[in-house]
Amino acid sequence: MPTVTLLSDFGTRDGFAAAMKGVIATIAPEARLVDAAHDVPRGDVTAAAWALYEYWDLFPPDTVHLAVVDPGVGGGRRAVAFDLGACRVVAPDNGLISRALDAAETWRCVEIVERRYMRPTISTTFHGRDIFAPAAAHLAAGVELDALGPELIDPIRLDLPEPERQDDRVVGRITHIDRFGNLITDIPNEWVRDDWIVEGGGHHLGRVQSSYSAVEPGDVVVVRGSMGTLEVAVRDGSAAQQLGLDRAARMVARSY
Amino acid sequence: MPTVTLLSDFGTRDGFAAAMKGVIATIAPEARLVDAAHDVPRGDVTAAAWALYEYWDLFPPDTVHLAVVDPGVGGGRRAVAFDLGACRVVAPDNGLISRALDAAETWRCVEIVERRYMRPTISTTFHGRDIFAPAAAHLAAGVELDALGPELIDPIRLDLPEPERQDDRVVGRITHIDRFGNLITDIPNEWVRDDWIVEGGGHHLGRVQSSYSAVEPGDVVVVRGSMGTLEVAVRDGSAAQQLGLDRAARMVARSY
Amino acid sequence: MPTVTLLSDFGTRDGFAAAMKGVIATIAPEARLVDAAHDVPRGDVTAAAWALYEYWDLFPPDTVHLAVVDPGVGGGRRAVAFDLGACRVVAPDNGLISRALDAAETWRCVEIVERRYMRPTISTTFHGRDIFAPAAAHLAAGVELDALGPELIDPIRLDLPEPERQDDRVVGRITHIDRFGNLITDIPNEWVRDDWIVEGGGHHLGRVQSSYSAVEPGDVVVVRGSMGTLEVAVRDGSAAQQLGLDRAARMVARSY
Repeated sequence: MPTVTLLSDFGTRDGFAAAMKGVIATIAPEARLVDAAHDVPRGDVTAAAWALYEYWDLFPPDTVHLAVVDPGVGGGRRAVAFDLGACRVVAPDNGLISRALDAAETWRCVEIVERRYMRPTISTTFHGRDIFAPAAAHLAAGVELDALGPELIDPIRLDLPEPERQDDRVVGRITHIDRFGNLITDIPNEWVRDDWIVEGGGHHLGRVQSSYSAVEPGDVVVVRGSMGTLEVAVRDGSAAQQLGLDRAARMVARSY
Repeated sequence: MPTVTLLSDFGTRDGFAAAMKGVIATIAPEARLVDAAHDVPRGDVTAAAWALYEYWDLFPPDTVHLAVVDPGVGGGRRAVAFDLGACRVVAPDNGLISRALDAAETWRCVEIVERRYMRPTISTTFHGRDIFAPAAAHLAAGVELDALGPELIDPIRLDLPEPERQDDRVVGRITHIDRFGNLITDIPNEWVRDDWIVEGGGHHLGRVQSSYSAVEPGDVVVVRGSMGTLEVAVRDGSAAQQLGLDRAARMVARSY
Repeated sequence: MPTVTLLSDFGTRDGFAAAMKGVIATIAPEARLVDAAHDVPRGDVTAAAWALYEYWDLFPPDTVHLAVVDPGVGGGRRAVAFDLGACRVVAPDNGLISRALDAAETWRCVEIVERRYMRPTISTTFHGRDIFAPAAAHLAAGVELDALGPELIDPIRLDLPEPERQDDRVVGRITHIDRFGNLITDIPNEWVRDDWIVEGGGHHLGRVQSSYSAVEPGDVVVVRGSMGTLEVAVRDGSAAQQLGLDRAARMVARSY
């Protein structure tokens, strides 16, 4: 029983996500449908790339991840399907898969062009239903990746700068703000020593703590995050609001 | 493995939707549970009717769609079950099924009255759990539609006016506003010629474009929508907000 | 096919819930994954306890309910698993299970300590993925409750005062505010006579009515709620907003 997961910015008040599920259930009746998240901020490919990165390699290997945050729908952007070893992913070619791709040991990408694996009529506004969901379903039902179209060697990638490491300091940035207002950085947990201090956007944020509970409610706390990089939080509050920091803001960890 | 989908305005912070799922899983252990959407605007039967319309015929034919947006719960409104050929639907008799019904080639409706297909105790506030979910589950488990109660020939329908077509103009209206603020009209895509212009609520909206990307971000764009009717959008924005238009607003497409 | 349900405050814009699902699907490939709710107000254990209470005993008995609202993650709080007869529950030991526990006829609790039933690496911020989801999955896959760790006889319980009953009056309080702004009280439906009146926070709320529809839109109505206790609503509105009442506010039902 292969699994198909669904990620989108379609929200949960319309029938968009359900339409994709119906298409999948019809093509791959045995597939298990699993919602990943449907409230990715609208058109925010960078946030979607992070969300996918949080779960792409945690499912059984026959899983197909369908990810549709697609501000360029109906324009010239390509439709792509990936085999990442740990899973397959179907998505618009807009960088959504960047973080999973960077983390994958191997990958192979094809452009989805085979008309017979799409719906008979293709709208200009809802490729999730007409192109991406059918492709994901056919993969789940046993169609080979290469049957969907020709190999594509230059999928679009987001410009994700690497953190810079020196002996006594690391310079990185905020890569994601989660629903709690926690600031996820790109600074690897193990690059930072316990006696270093962290700074971000002009704020002194203190040393890395063992858990959120190490500080009082309302106070800022830096912890080693669950995705392997430093995270700035406010206990029972929103670090994004309290510190006024946004994605891409510069973060520094350094010896004191 | 029959599928039961769930549509409601119950939101995703309480256990309402889960209660319905538990009831279904107990009565029809083999059924696949699929969330359609639970954030339909509260009590908005018209929006629910549109949401259901977006997916009702896309699932395998043994699917039962459970749809509970039920502002009249506990009052005199009837509970109904439909066989639409492409699927069955269980819902309050308040017009929620109107759009799917209009689109169905055949339909048969019964009023749900058989006590043995309900929960032993029926609350006055949560028929989703006590009447609708059990009925949907029993249908999924193999109970015949007619076993639920007597045929009903006059299910409630929403008053949905038809667009008017003349040689050089079509007059319709906005029928749905989606989560992106896109304005879905009832003007069929193929009724409007490429060189016509579209107007709505005093706004000149231009010609029908090939995709959202045909205009700059922030600009209004009219496209042929994915449900077969014209759609007014603002690229990367909200047409509903920017144009100040609401559901039922008059839309005109005409030769220029 | 055992069912694993998921309750959390993780929202539906990140990959948190999906990460838990992936972990479960890998450990228990046959399990059915069912979302309960992911928009419990952040860190609100009391609200989560109510949500769980709404569905805990409605699923087939081989169901495992995973419930992760965990403001104390990474601190000293314990991880627990319960057998409640009607189901099993895996949660942080913070009182989240209180209401289900009070309602269960029998229960047995263990502390989750067995390292082999956790993920190899355990983060300090996401025990949902690293401890709770694996435990729930192993239970669903057939592992015995007692294999997870030693019995625990003093799980944390919320301080939930009992309503007080006299011959001609009952004094209780608001225990939950649902997504519609309805005020759920702890006053049992059958303790209150039809000719009594209800008061709350200085407001005279009238007699218990047969349904929401017994009053006009915008008016306050007291009904016998679907969880067995009185509920205060505003028809097509929010009682919480209109009356300015919050959880724990005192409610009185008394002879007139």
